[in-house]
Amino acid sequence: MNKKFRLFIYVFLLILISPLFANAGVEGSLVEKMTDLVFQIGVILFAAKLGGFLMKKMDMPSVLGELMMGILIGPYLLGGLPFFGFHNGLFPLVNPEFPVTPELYAFSTVASIILLFHSGLETDLSMFLRFSAKGAIIGIGGVFVSFVSGAWAGSLITGLPIISPVNLFLGVISTATSVGITARILSEQRKMDSPEGVTVLAAAVIDDVLGIIILAIVLGIVSVMTGHGGAVKWSAIGYIALKAIGVWLGFTVLGLFFARKIGNSLKIFNSETSISVMSLGLALILSGIFEKAGLAMIIGAYVMGLSLSRTDLSFVIQEKIHPIQEFFVPIFFCVMGMLVNVNEVLKPDVLIAGVFFSLVGILSKVVGCGIPSLFLNFNLLGAARVGVGMVPRGEVALIMAGIGISAGILSPGQFGVAVLMTLVTTLIPPPVLTILLRKEKRGTRTEMKGSTTVVNVFDFPSYELMTLALTKVIQALKEEGFYLHDMELDHHLYQIRKDDVFLTIHEHADHFEVVSDPEDVFYIKTVVYESLLEVNNTIENLKTMAKPEELKKELSADDNTRVQNSFFKDIHENCIIMNLKGNNKNSILYEMVDLMDNAGKLVDYEECLQAVLDREASMSTGMQNGIAIPHGKTDGVRELVVAIGLKKEGIDFSSLDGQPSKVFIMTLSPKKNTGPHIQFLSSISAILNKPHFIDDLLACPNAASVKELLIREAKEKG
Amino acid sequence: MNKKFRLFIYVFLLILISPLFANAGVEGSLVEKMTDLVFQIGVILFAAKLGGFLMKKMDMPSVLGELMMGILIGPYLLGGLPFFGFHNGLFPLVNPEFPVTPELYAFSTVASIILLFHSGLETDLSMFLRFSAKGAIIGIGGVFVSFVSGAWAGSLITGLPIISPVNLFLGVISTATSVGITARILSEQRKMDSPEGVTVLAAAVIDDVLGIIILAIVLGIVSVMTGHGGAVKWSAIGYIALKAIGVWLGFTVLGLFFARKIGNSLKIFNSETSISVMSLGLALILSGIFEKAGLAMIIGAYVMGLSLSRTDLSFVIQEKIHPIQEFFVPIFFCVMGMLVNVNEVLKPDVLIAGVFFSLVGILSKVVGCGIPSLFLNFNLLGAARVGVGMVPRGEVALIMAGIGISAGILSPGQFGVAVLMTLVTTLIPPPVLTILLRKEKRGTRTEMKGSTTVVNVFDFPSYELMTLALTKVIQALKEEGFYLHDMELDHHLYQIRKDDVFLTIHEHADHFEVVSDPEDVFYIKTVVYESLLEVNNTIENLKTMAKPEELKKELSADDNTRVQNSFFKDIHENCIIMNLKGNNKNSILYEMVDLMDNAGKLVDYEECLQAVLDREASMSTGMQNGIAIPHGKTDGVRELVVAIGLKKEGIDFSSLDGQPSKVFIMTLSPKKNTGPHIQFLSSISAILNKPHFIDDLLACPNAASVKELLIREAKEKG
Repeated sequence: MNKKFRLFIYVFLLILISPLFANAGVEGSLVEKMTDLVFQIGVILFAAKLGGFLMKKMDMPSVLGELMMGILIGPYLLGGLPFFGFHNGLFPLVNPEFPVTPELYAFSTVASIILLFHSGLETDLSMFLRFSAKGAIIGIGGVFVSFVSGAWAGSLITGLPIISPVNLFLGVISTATSVGITARILSEQRKMDSPEGVTVLAAAVIDDVLGIIILAIVLGIVSVMTGHGGAVKWSAIGYIALKAIGVWLGFTVLGLFFARKIGNSLKIFNSETSISVMSLGLALILSGIFEKAGLAMIIGAYVMGLSLSRTDLSFVIQEKIHPIQEFFVPIFFCVMGMLVNVNEVLKPDVLIAGVFFSLVGILSKVVGCGIPSLFLNFNLLGAARVGVGMVPRGEVALIMAGIGISAGILSPGQFGVAVLMTLVTTLIPPPVLTILLRKEKRGTRTEMKGSTTVVNVFDFPSYELMTLALTKVIQALKEEGFYLHDMELDHHLYQIRKDDVFLTIHEHADHFEVVSDPEDVFYIKTVVYESLLEVNNTIENLKTMAKPEELKKELSADDNTRVQNSFFKDIHENCIIMNLKGNNKNSILYEMVDLMDNAGKLVDYEECLQAVLDREASMSTGMQNGIAIPHGKTDGVRELVVAIGLKKEGIDFSSLDGQPSKVFIMTLSPKKNTGPHIQFLSSISAILNKPHFIDDLLACPNAASVKELLIREAKEKG
Repeated sequence: MNKKFRLFIYVFLLILISPLFANAGVEGSLVEKMTDLVFQIGVILFAAKLGGFLMKKMDMPSVLGELMMGILIGPYLLGGLPFFGFHNGLFPLVNPEFPVTPELYAFSTVASIILLFHSGLETDLSMFLRFSAKGAIIGIGGVFVSFVSGAWAGSLITGLPIISPVNLFLGVISTATSVGITARILSEQRKMDSPEGVTVLAAAVIDDVLGIIILAIVLGIVSVMTGHGGAVKWSAIGYIALKAIGVWLGFTVLGLFFARKIGNSLKIFNSETSISVMSLGLALILSGIFEKAGLAMIIGAYVMGLSLSRTDLSFVIQEKIHPIQEFFVPIFFCVMGMLVNVNEVLKPDVLIAGVFFSLVGILSKVVGCGIPSLFLNFNLLGAARVGVGMVPRGEVALIMAGIGISAGILSPGQFGVAVLMTLVTTLIPPPVLTILLRKEKRGTRTEMKGSTTVVNVFDFPSYELMTLALTKVIQALKEEGFYLHDMELDHHLYQIRKDDVFLTIHEHADHFEVVSDPEDVFYIKTVVYESLLEVNNTIENLKTMAKPEELKKELSADDNTRVQNSFFKDIHENCIIMNLKGNNKNSILYEMVDLMDNAGKLVDYEECLQAVLDREASMSTGMQNGIAIPHGKTDGVRELVVAIGLKKEGIDFSSLDGQPSKVFIMTLSPKKNTGPHIQFLSSISAILNKPHFIDDLLACPNAASVKELLIREAKEKG
C-alpha cells in the first residue's frame, strides 16, 4: 500500500464511522445545515487533494482531478447515496434545479472571485499595452474564432439562433485559454523562452483581457434579450454592449489611475496579511457592484486585481492570499464537478454534443491562433505548437459555465457539455504539445533570437540558502524594472520580462536555474553576484550591530545562573580524558573527537570533526578562566554527546581573556532535535565560573572523580 | 481629516454610489443571494477593520470594535434601512427569527471553527498536566464559581429553574475567560513574568479546557431535557453527561495518542500551506462528527487543534492559517453583533438583566479566582490582580452564545444579555488591572522568584535583520525543548516556557526584548549569541558555495552581451573627468563622488561616499582590461547618477586580472526604485570589453568626445 495515501484512508474511515455518532437533530434546522456544510467542506478538501494527487501521478493538471472528484462525490453519484446518519447522503440533492446548497455554493462563489482577483493581479498590463504585437494578433485571432465557432456549435446543439443567450454563453465559455498547463509543459521541455513559448504566454494575456470584455458584452446582451422575451433588438443590444464596455472601461481606467493611491491607502494596515485581506475586501465590494451593474462579479474582481497589479503590493498580495486561495479554490473545482448532472451528461445526445463541442473548442484555437502564426514568421510546426498551446481551457471557462447554470441560462445538459469541453481541452494538449516540442526542428521560418537559450545553474548547499539568495535576486530584478510572473505557485516557476529581455527562473530543492538568451547571461550573472554581495553585507551589518564579540564578553556567567544538574549524570567516564596530549587548538579538537569516537558515541566521525572545526572557525569557544567549550551541531551524532578533557599546562585557544585554556568541555548535538544543548553549555559555563573550581578539577586523580565533582557542584548550584 | 481613515471614506463612498449601478435582478434568485453575500462580506471586512481601529485608538481590544460595528451595520440598525438598490437595506432582516442569511452565517460558523482550532493549537497541554498546581486551582475555582453563579443569575432573569437549558447555557457562557486582553496589559506593564502574570496565564489554560468540557456536558443535558419536554431526569442527565465526557475524552486521548502519526501523514503535502489547509480540513471533519454526536462543532475543532499542538507542525499551522483567520474572524465578530436585536436589548427589563448578568460575571471571576489565590501565597493586592485578570470573556463566550441562539435555546433578549456581558467584562478590567498593577507593592505574601525580572534588549539595524535573528533564536529555543506561545499575532509577543524557565519576547520594529528571571539571563545571551553565529555561518557557506569570486571571473562579458544604448545619452558632461588626480583607490573614489556633488547630482554627499566605500569593502569592483565600476545603492541620490573618470597612468584597484585600472565608471542609485542600475553596469562592462576601446577612450581630448564615443559604441552593439 502506498504510504502516501495513508492519511486519505484514515480520513475515509473517519467519514465512514461518523454516522455512528449521529444523534437525531432537527432536520433542516440552521444548526443541521451548518453541521452538514462544515463536514462537507472538510470532505471536499480531502477529496480534492486526493483527486489532484492521482492526476499528478498521471502527469495531468491537478485541477482536473479536483473537478472529477467533485463529479464523483457529488449529489448525482456517491454523495447522493443514502448513508446511515446522512439520510439523503453526504451531498444530498437538495433541489433538483440546483444540486448544491446555497451555503456551499457561497464558498465556491467567493473562490471564483479570489481566482479572478489573483488572475488580475498577475496580468502584466504594460506588456499588454506595448509588447509583442505578435502575441496580440494571435490572441485576438484565437478569441475571435473560438467565440464565433463556440456560439455556432452551440446553435447546432441547441437548435436556437446564434444570437441567443445560451449560444452566446457557450461562445464565451469557449474563449478563455488557461495557460498554466501549457507553461508547465514548455518549462519541462525548456522551451518557455522559445519564440513559440514567448508568443503563447503573451497571447494568453490578451486572451484573458478579451475574454473578460466579451463576457461583459454578452451579459449585457443576454439581459436585454431576457428583458424582451428573447427577441433580438439590435439597437438595444448595441446600447447595452456599449454600456457594458463603458462600465468595464470606466472602472478599469479609474482603477489604474488611482492604483497607486489605493495601494498607499491600503498600507495603513500594519501587516502584509491585513493589506492583502483588505485588498480582497475591495475586490469583493467591486464584484458586488459589477454584478449589480449587470456585469459579472468576476469581472469586478479581475478589474480590482488588474488595478493593484500596477502597484508594488501586487506580489505581496499574491503571496499572502495564497493560503486563502488554497482553502477556497478546491471547493470551487469540486462544486463545479458537483453541478454536473451525470444522468443528463450520459444521455447519448448530450454526450455527442459534448464531444462535438470539445472538437470545435480544440480546432477553433488551433486554427484561430495557428493561422495568424503562419503569417508571423512561424512555419507549420511552429504554428501547430502555438495553436495547441492555446487550446487548454481552465478555471475561467468553468466559472463562466457556473455563472450560466446558476443564472438559469444553461440547462444541466448544456452545463455538462461545457464541463466536458473543459476536461477534453485540458487532457488532449499536454501529450500532443510534448510530441510537437520534442522535434528538434525550429518552429520559425528564419533564425530568431530566442531560438537558442542558455541555462545558468546556481547551486546552494541548502533550500534555505537558495531561498534567501533567490529572494534577493528577484527583488533586485524587480527593482531593475522587471515584471515577475509566478507561473504556478506550486512549481516555483517564474517568468520574468522587461521590454525584450525574457528570463525564466526555475526553483529547485537546492539550486535555481535561469534560462535566457545567450546575450543576457552576463547581465544575469551580474544580478546574482550583486545580490549575493548584498546578502553578505546585510549579515556583516548584523554581526557588527548585534556585536557577538561584546555579547561573548558578557557571557561570563554570574553566580545566579540556573544550572540543570541532571545533565552531568549522563557523562560517560570513557569520555573524560585526564591529560590531553595536543599542544595546539586543532590537535586538542582532534583528540577529543577521537575520544568520543572510541567510546562508540559517534555515527560519522568525519562529520563530527568538521562541525567542531567549523564552529571554532566562526569564533573561538575559549572562555574566561581557562575554560573552553568547543561544540557543534551535526548529524554525525544521534543525541547530545559530551567529552571532557584536561590539560594542566594549558594551551592558547584564543580565549576571551587571553589566558591559556586548561579545561575543555566538548559537546556535539544532532542538527535536528538538538535538545537542550545550549542549556547544557550555559550550565557548564556557570559551574566552571569560579577560578578555584578549575584548580579542583585539574587536581582530580581520575575520570570518576571528575564526574563526581561536576555532579556535586551542579547540585549545589541547581 | 485623519489621513489614516481616507481608505474607509473611499470605501464608504463606493458603497453609497453602488446602488446607482443596480439593475433589476431576479429577487431572491441564487445569483442575487450570492451578489448580496459577496458585497456584504466586503463591507464587513472594512467595517470590522474600522471598528477595530477606533477601539485601538481608545486603547481597547479591537474585537470589541468589530462586535459593536456588527451591531451598528446589522439588520436592526443601519443594515436594515432601505437604501435604493438594496430594497430592504444592505443587511436585510431576512427572517425575524434569525436575522442573518444562512450563507453569511455559514462563513461565521467556519470562522468559529478556525478560532477554536487555533485555540487548541496554542494550548500547552504539558503545562496543563504538570505545571503550576496554583494556576490549576485558581482556574478551576473561577470556572466553577462563574458557571454556578451564571446559571443562578440566569434563573433569576428567566424565572426558570437553574437546571434548565437556558440557564445552563448562560452558565457556560459565563465560564470562558479570554486571556489575550490581560496578557497585553501584563506585557505593557512588564508584569507578564510576575507571579500574578504567570498564574493568570496558567489558569487560563485550565479555563479553556474546563470550559470545553462543561459545554460538552451541558449540551448533552440540554439534548436530554428537550427530548423529555424539559423534565429533569437525573439518571438520564448523568448518563448523557458521562457520554459527552466519554466522546470528548475518547477523541482527545486518541488525538493525542496519534498526534505524531497524524502530523507525519500531513507532511505528505509538499508545502506548509497545504499541510495547514489540510489540517484545517481535519478540524472541519471532526467538528462535523462532534456536532453529530450531540456535542458542539467547536469542541471537535478544539480537540483537533489540541492534538496537533503536540506535534512540530503546531507553529507552522498557526502561522500559515493566519491569513485565513484574518479573512474569516472579522466576519464572525460582525455577525455576532448583527445577531443582537437592538430593539430587544433596549427594553428596560433586558437592559437591567444584562447589567445584573454582567456584574455577576465580573464578581464570579474575581471571587472564584481571588479567594483561592489568598490561600496560595498571594496577598489581597495579588489576589485582586489575579481575579481581575481572569474577568475578560471573549470569542469563546460569543461563540457559545451564538450556538445558543442558532439552536433556539436562547431568545434574542437572552442572547443580547450574553453579548452585553461579554462587552462589559471586556471593557472594565483593562483600566482596573492597569491601576492595580501600577502599585509598586508586591502581590505575594513572601518574596518569590519571578518578583524581579530583567529585560535584555537586542538591537538591530533594520526590521529585516531583527526578524532574521529572532527567527533563528526562536528556532533554537524550540529545539531546546521550549514551548512557544504566540500571545497576540498582531502584537508580536511571545511567551516561552519550559519547566520552570519562563521567558517573554517582545518584538519591536528594530529590536527585540527578552524578559526573564535574572538567573536565566546568561542562558538567553548564549542562545542569542549562538543563533547569530549560525546565521553568520549560513552566509559564509552561501558565499563559498555560490562562489562570488568565481562568478566575478566569469563576469567578463563576451561580445554578444545586450547593450541598452539609451543609458549613455543621459550622462552629464560635468560628470566626466579627463584626468583623475588621486593615486590610490580611496582618493579616486572621493574625487569622483566630489565630481557628482559639484554637478549638483547628490542629495547627501556623506551617504553617497559611504555607499561607494562600503560596496568596495565587500569586494573590489576592479574588472579586467583596466576598467573599474565602483557603485552603490544609497538614499543620497534621487535617481541613477553616473560619473566617468580617466587616469592614463592607472592605479592599483585590486582588479580581477591584477592590471592597473584606468577607466572608472561610477554609478549611484537610490535604495528604493534603484531602476535598471545593474543593466547599466552590464551594458558598461559589455562595451568596455574590447582592449582597444579603452585606448580609444583614453585618447579622447575632452568630456564631449568621451560621451560621443560611448554613445557610438553602444549603438553599434545595441
